Amino acid sequence: MASPAAQLPADLLIDATDEIAIRQDLTLVALGKRPADRVLRVGRLLDVHSRTWAVDQEIVIKGRRIAYVGPAGSWTGEAATRVHEPDLAAVPGFGEAHKHIESSHLTPEYEAALVMPHGVTWVCEASHEFSNVNGANNLEFWLEARRRGSPMKIFPLPGSAVPPTAYEWGGGYFGYDEQKQFLSESLMVAGLDEVMDWPSVWNPENPSYDRLWGMIRATFEKRGVVEGHAAGLRDLSSINAFAAAGMASDHEGWFLEEVWEKLTHGLFVELRPHSLPDIIKGLIAKGLSDWSQIAFVTDDRSATDTLKLGATDYNMRLAIENGLSPEIAIQCVTINPARHMRLTPWVGSIAPGRFADIVLLEDVASLKIAKVWADGRPASEGSSFVGELPKIDWPEWATRTVKIDRTVTAADFRIPAPGEGATAQAALLRPFHWHDDFITMELPVEDGAVQRDFERNVTKFAIVDRFSGEAKVSKMFWLGTGPRTPDTALGATLGHDKHNIWVVGSSDEAMAMVANELAAQQGGWVLVSGGKVVARVFYEVGGLMTARPAEVLDAEMQALYVEGAKIDWMYEPTFSPRWWPGFPERLSFATLTCAPWRWVLVAPSPLAPEGFVNVATGATHPVVW
Amino acid sequence: MASPAAQLPADLLIDATDEIAIRQDLTLVALGKRPADRVLRVGRLLDVHSRTWAVDQEIVIKGRRIAYVGPAGSWTGEAATRVHEPDLAAVPGFGEAHKHIESSHLTPEYEAALVMPHGVTWVCEASHEFSNVNGANNLEFWLEARRRGSPMKIFPLPGSAVPPTAYEWGGGYFGYDEQKQFLSESLMVAGLDEVMDWPSVWNPENPSYDRLWGMIRATFEKRGVVEGHAAGLRDLSSINAFAAAGMASDHEGWFLEEVWEKLTHGLFVELRPHSLPDIIKGLIAKGLSDWSQIAFVTDDRSATDTLKLGATDYNMRLAIENGLSPEIAIQCVTINPARHMRLTPWVGSIAPGRFADIVLLEDVASLKIAKVWADGRPASEGSSFVGELPKIDWPEWATRTVKIDRTVTAADFRIPAPGEGATAQAALLRPFHWHDDFITMELPVEDGAVQRDFERNVTKFAIVDRFSGEAKVSKMFWLGTGPRTPDTALGATLGHDKHNIWVVGSSDEAMAMVANELAAQQGGWVLVSGGKVVARVFYEVGGLMTARPAEVLDAEMQALYVEGAKIDWMYEPTFSPRWWPGFPERLSFATLTCAPWRWVLVAPSPLAPEGFVNVATGATHPVVW
Repeated sequence: MASPAAQLPADLLIDATDEIAIRQDLTLVALGKRPADRVLRVGRLLDVHSRTWAVDQEIVIKGRRIAYVGPAGSWTGEAATRVHEPDLAAVPGFGEAHKHIESSHLTPEYEAALVMPHGVTWVCEASHEFSNVNGANNLEFWLEARRRGSPMKIFPLPGSAVPPTAYEWGGGYFGYDEQKQFLSESLMVAGLDEVMDWPSVWNPENPSYDRLWGMIRATFEKRGVVEGHAAGLRDLSSINAFAAAGMASDHEGWFLEEVWEKLTHGLFVELRPHSLPDIIKGLIAKGLSDWSQIAFVTDDRSATDTLKLGATDYNMRLAIENGLSPEIAIQCVTINPARHMRLTPWVGSIAPGRFADIVLLEDVASLKIAKVWADGRPASEGSSFVGELPKIDWPEWATRTVKIDRTVTAADFRIPAPGEGATAQAALLRPFHWHDDFITMELPVEDGAVQRDFERNVTKFAIVDRFSGEAKVSKMFWLGTGPRTPDTALGATLGHDKHNIWVVGSSDEAMAMVANELAAQQGGWVLVSGGKVVARVFYEVGGLMTARPAEVLDAEMQALYVEGAKIDWMYEPTFSPRWWPGFPERLSFATLTCAPWRWVLVAPSPLAPEGFVNVATGATHPVVW
Repeated sequence: MASPAAQLPADLLIDATDEIAIRQDLTLVALGKRPADRVLRVGRLLDVHSRTWAVDQEIVIKGRRIAYVGPAGSWTGEAATRVHEPDLAAVPGFGEAHKHIESSHLTPEYEAALVMPHGVTWVCEASHEFSNVNGANNLEFWLEARRRGSPMKIFPLPGSAVPPTAYEWGGGYFGYDEQKQFLSESLMVAGLDEVMDWPSVWNPENPSYDRLWGMIRATFEKRGVVEGHAAGLRDLSSINAFAAAGMASDHEGWFLEEVWEKLTHGLFVELRPHSLPDIIKGLIAKGLSDWSQIAFVTDDRSATDTLKLGATDYNMRLAIENGLSPEIAIQCVTINPARHMRLTPWVGSIAPGRFADIVLLEDVASLKIAKVWADGRPASEGSSFVGELPKIDWPEWATRTVKIDRTVTAADFRIPAPGEGATAQAALLRPFHWHDDFITMELPVEDGAVQRDFERNVTKFAIVDRFSGEAKVSKMFWLGTGPRTPDTALGATLGHDKHNIWVVGSSDEAMAMVANELAAQQGGWVLVSGGKVVARVFYEVGGLMTARPAEVLDAEMQALYVEGAKIDWMYEPTFSPRWWPGFPERLSFATLTCAPWRWVLVAPSPLAPEGFVNVATGATHPVVW
């Protein structure tokens, strides 16, 4: 039988035609009728299907896949290379059902270099950030690094919230047709990214209702997975309704009882580290003996935090420290999410046919990672990434995404007084203000404009549209955030989930400068104080990410933090347990419009001309009156 | 909000467009904003996601689905009807990943009536029997009963072996195009039925290679599940190769070590009752604590056996008796197979959005079934089916499937002597003769034809084609089966998997009579002795099934057994542990051509003109020489 090696596909992106050719070959390799590329022999190996260890095993590799697993010496074929790691324990490459790589602020090839030494070999990319910036090129963007040889498998799930609500626009529109097309186009697309706009799901009168159900319909039609996002849905009625709507999972559980109800109502539970310790302890205390419907996910984590804490391995260590057995913790990032996402033919276990993605542990109890293999060859040694890091010159559709064709001025941020009085009524929000009602305050009027009130923790917050070219601006007063330091403003193109520019500032001039600088540098963070830029972070790809190593980006972030620490930031606690005093980095999440948000500020839009709207009801209101 | 009840779909066959409408409605019912049809309150309820019980729960039902599950009284909406079963325990309707309803010999509507009192509410129909008889109408056939209101959900998997091998023909041809079409046509199609022709999978030179891999390709393309059938594959190389080929499961494990290797190499293990006791005991002894990759299946079971033993519940009781906890046994027929087959949005748990299919147990430990609900209403009370039993007049494509346009004669079965000698060499097979070589014997010649030899347990076996109209006949000598009684022959249109007519007889005249009678009655069993038909069983649908109640069919079978017991049957043991002395009912499986078969007799075909062929190698051989 002639060797067909020359005709074998590259096996980077999963495609049914290639898949067949690859598996036809693997079958013959398993039988010993064709040679393998490498045999990796390990001290022991975890089978996650049975949650049992086998000692002294060999993993036979052809191309990027596993052809055979068995006791050392049992395979009958010939291999070009043999590697022996008698002291290491092999477990499957770690994966996640839900992560926004955008939150690392690294492009996929640099993300791979960052997280693979932590054991991560595959990830379901919750792609609504880049989807919202450039929906048309979304799939192309997420598959490009892999197409160029990056060893991490990225399974993009098109954003369900593109736009996030009917009150937002620009960058992309995903409905039935688009989702059907994505799922038809590539088997790398596993389903629909977190359905987070709950009012659009339950309420037939919501203007996004048909768009969102259209995406759900296309996902069912193509046998994909509909991922959920049930933030703040803690009462039994809402949890039931969420499951009844066809949502397959949730990753927003904060409390044990909430997670328990979600689990027992059929939602696959994806635990994030913030709530993980208490929930793991609680589930163990409840005597949970079947963990097959549970996974660990990272969701959002900056490169800085990953450098500090770790990646998926950090989530696992937290679980182990809180009493979970290491083997179950490993299942929670391998077979469990792979099965849930219907990706078991490719990832989630060390078994024939799967990608040869293997984490080699020096110590299982502490999850000490010695080496990581991916695609059948070393991807990391210790903390060093040694895999393929393709050099990608991202095209203009990725790097020219902040479209502002004019100079933004201080006048754009002025809020004219509604009348002749010395004061005006103003509607205020705080970051993470999830109340049904906005806050009302009486604010001073000067020179015909309503003014900030630093004594009462009141500053100005604005959204500058970065899609139309016109830089449409909406603005209002916010409470308990922003600089008290004069002539200071902070802004970013990272503003979940629509990723317009947000700016918070103690003067309108500083706010205008931030907007103009962000446009000039095509995204990132800008901190202005005393009439000059004191810190910048560059996110030149989509205004969300940078195509540079994590350490370089981190250094920029650290410089921003240093300058940010010199500013006097206003603060008051709000509904989110993760809203802290100091540099208000989490303002980039304060522009969300999904559940449990009610009143929000969005860029001016036909349904909300001033941008101030209750996304749960559709009500609008003047920002001053 | 106006009630939309009038516009809701019938919700019988799953369809993405209907699904959305149904779930939009269910969501509002869960929230208490729309009324429900029924509330079923139960003493306790098993959540299979966490494997835990909750007491005094209510299940809110709208249409055929569950809208809400929670503590009694917790749902805030209004319901037309309320039912309280304080003494019963609710568990999800039982389902199977692999079953041939054809082997019940009942059409789907009567199968539902038979098995639903045993708790079965859904089944993945391994449809290659009917596929082989009428491939073109296969999907229509399996969906028709449900379309007419039968409460059992049948998820048909198109046969991978249509034809079973390249040496067989007639009735259907399924390749890439057909499988793609099936998966596009209906979401009820979950994947590809058991890939059983192993030589066609591993060997590129096998003539079915491209057809079969085409079906696998289409299944990957449509995100379906590729079901396996690894009969006789027990060595580690073959098990690895089978998994590497992309097979997701196996249901052919007979021995503990074999099952263990299959489980730990990534195959979802579907246990059949024959091997279940030893395997369950063995897995428990090995300390298996994660059963999520295990399910119980029936595969083939006649209506007679189901009346005697039970359905899926029999499999579960066997497991419980052998030491498995009832709750894990329940998972093995609910969430485990549903998750494996990617059907969790619809079946496998008592959770919102799923069909309201509920088994009400009087006693959990003994699995005593009091009532079964399906589609949100009672389907059985005790052993009585009380659900919808549609009256279907099956069309001619289902009832005129034995196409023989001539009279078959004794001469059709004559085996001419190859020369002038008093004896001739003959190639013989036994039922379930899985050896690489056929058996050779010297047989007497009389009147220019080679003869049977009853002293040495040798009789004649034939296949009569029932597809071409020409009744092409292949014949040879078989050992250790068939009637020793003179003028006797037995035959059936049930002859796995091609379902031509097979006949075994002590005279050529009796064999001809059997063939003609089977053609006249359009299928079933015929036993001829002393020149007359002494017993008949009617399978008027596809020559495989009858559209009559199980009890009526069983009475016919019992009559066949009574007459069969009057015949003297030859016997010798063979490779199969399930080949017994007496009435040779299992000859209907002795015509299989999948692994582990080697030499077989098929109807005359271009690649095997005499019908005698080694399906593993493609070699042919004269039947006498």
